[in-house]
Amino acid sequence: MSLDPSYITPGLDFNRDTNYIEDRITQDGRDGWPVEPGRYRLVAARACPWANRTTIVRRLLGLEGVISLGLPGPTHDKNSWTFDLDPGGLDPVLGIERLQQAFFARFPDYPRGITVPAIVDVPSGKVVTNNYPQITLDFETQWTQYHRPGAPDLYPEVLRAEIDEVANLIFHDVNNGVYKCGFAGSQKSYERAYDALFARLDWLEQRLAGQRYLVGDTITEADIRLFTTLARFDSVYHGHFKCNRNKLSEMPVLWAYARDLFQTPGFGDTIDFDQIKKHYYVTHVDINPSGIVPKGPDAAAWLAPHARADLGGHPFGTGTPPEPPLPFERIAN
Amino acid sequence: MSLDPSYITPGLDFNRDTNYIEDRITQDGRDGWPVEPGRYRLVAARACPWANRTTIVRRLLGLEGVISLGLPGPTHDKNSWTFDLDPGGLDPVLGIERLQQAFFARFPDYPRGITVPAIVDVPSGKVVTNNYPQITLDFETQWTQYHRPGAPDLYPEVLRAEIDEVANLIFHDVNNGVYKCGFAGSQKSYERAYDALFARLDWLEQRLAGQRYLVGDTITEADIRLFTTLARFDSVYHGHFKCNRNKLSEMPVLWAYARDLFQTPGFGDTIDFDQIKKHYYVTHVDINPSGIVPKGPDAAAWLAPHARADLGGHPFGTGTPPEPPLPFERIAN
Repeated sequence: MSLDPSYITPGLDFNRDTNYIEDRITQDGRDGWPVEPGRYRLVAARACPWANRTTIVRRLLGLEGVISLGLPGPTHDKNSWTFDLDPGGLDPVLGIERLQQAFFARFPDYPRGITVPAIVDVPSGKVVTNNYPQITLDFETQWTQYHRPGAPDLYPEVLRAEIDEVANLIFHDVNNGVYKCGFAGSQKSYERAYDALFARLDWLEQRLAGQRYLVGDTITEADIRLFTTLARFDSVYHGHFKCNRNKLSEMPVLWAYARDLFQTPGFGDTIDFDQIKKHYYVTHVDINPSGIVPKGPDAAAWLAPHARADLGGHPFGTGTPPEPPLPFERIAN
Repeated sequence: MSLDPSYITPGLDFNRDTNYIEDRITQDGRDGWPVEPGRYRLVAARACPWANRTTIVRRLLGLEGVISLGLPGPTHDKNSWTFDLDPGGLDPVLGIERLQQAFFARFPDYPRGITVPAIVDVPSGKVVTNNYPQITLDFETQWTQYHRPGAPDLYPEVLRAEIDEVANLIFHDVNNGVYKCGFAGSQKSYERAYDALFARLDWLEQRLAGQRYLVGDTITEADIRLFTTLARFDSVYHGHFKCNRNKLSEMPVLWAYARDLFQTPGFGDTIDFDQIKKHYYVTHVDINPSGIVPKGPDAAAWLAPHARADLGGHPFGTGTPPEPPLPFERIAN
């Protein structure tokens, strides 16, 4: 998500800067940014797990027609994600080369990391928000009028307290936990993060042994938040971030759970393993100075049967799966 | 084995310096170094796979009483392995701090890497040889008079051509192949080494599916040479050297073969996983600048049953297993 050129601070724990532009796009437009189809562009690199949450939710809710998607490439320079995969190196809607330009359009002296996901107001070219935990919740609760027919309720009111609680544990120990392992500034700091990570994965292995999804019996925001880390585990976190007690594929329940989601429309079709590997192994020069990107593991394993349907549950509740991705948003590999 | 401070040459393949001090210790003493009990000291760091060959062969043949063992610590400075684990930082027999001193005693301007294994002539303090492929063969063929009762024939005359041929393939693609992956100076060079490595491991998986050992039906030099790389695979080569198509533990035949050897007296009792991990992750600063050592994977998996005895074969031929290691050579973990 962020792009400080030096990721490790010797002697210290990794400390994520969790200060974002906290404006919200709402039905009532209380922050000056009302829900409005076609007005906003979501900028979300395929590589980034935090951005990946937003691309999954956008797919599941069928918001592709009302919120367009800008896709920076997998690597970035020390100041900004860039639109280097687009023709001429320019985002075709925003007309900018670097996401930083949209942050500076909003705050000329913006001092923090230029992060994805970010939502840009297309008419003004200004970033509205990069506050990723709120972005998906607002897709779910503020954009309801534009959800596709059959869209699932990913944040059901009666389950919100439990979703928030589970997601909070997962954030600290898993989503951010893998970064605390990989960017630890000392052996002790690394080992503390590693122990917390695998204790939480063991806890999840137990929790998911008898139920198909994390909370309730349908896919919720909690599953999406866990999934984007699991999808990167064996390709990147296991080796690059030294999360190597075992691979995800060596935890039978979690691995089947992850494959189940991967094979659900809206999840696997947002995952680009090549971009994921390239991002971590090329960008983090202080962990992998050579910039060489591992060839393994074979992503085909994600398509193996999982038998999770035997546990019951209804992925989309009373709704339906999303349609395939838009043609120009399909992932090649 | 070697200790150039910079392991990667950008743009180039890894190129191992295979020039060693090629003197031999023989029965006829043709190079001035006759076989003589108590005269020589083998210097072999636990961490190093090339040195590990010599400690296994010494155990299997029961040469502990006639060739003593010096053990440098797992890390070294840019010029030499050091005896930092010994009381006062001095090898108790040679009385030196740094293995380099024994090389300089032999050649004051010795210009090459100070490598293990090395055999030192104790009276003069001079290195006799560091030519590791010959050292084990000479233990097997020149020191026969001092082999323990029941020692196996690790290099039977009728099988030498086949042992040499298999060992040669394994050297290029596996033993040195993992280094060619890890120290590749370009993406292309890495991918070429990775492909050759896993093609060879697939070939070995096939070869060992129906036979317990690589050549013939007993343990030979070929098994020892393969084993020392397999023992380090999941702990080090999989992540640190990016040999990550799969773990060894994901190749059922090779993994059972490796566990079979590990559980054979003389093999597993020479393996120190802590020193192995520390060596690679701390010494290779251009691959792992943080110096943080991964906690995983759990070495207890090496003790799982392997069922390889069902394939027949006789580990020691008509001989017997070696006795337990000498008390002061036992590995704590």
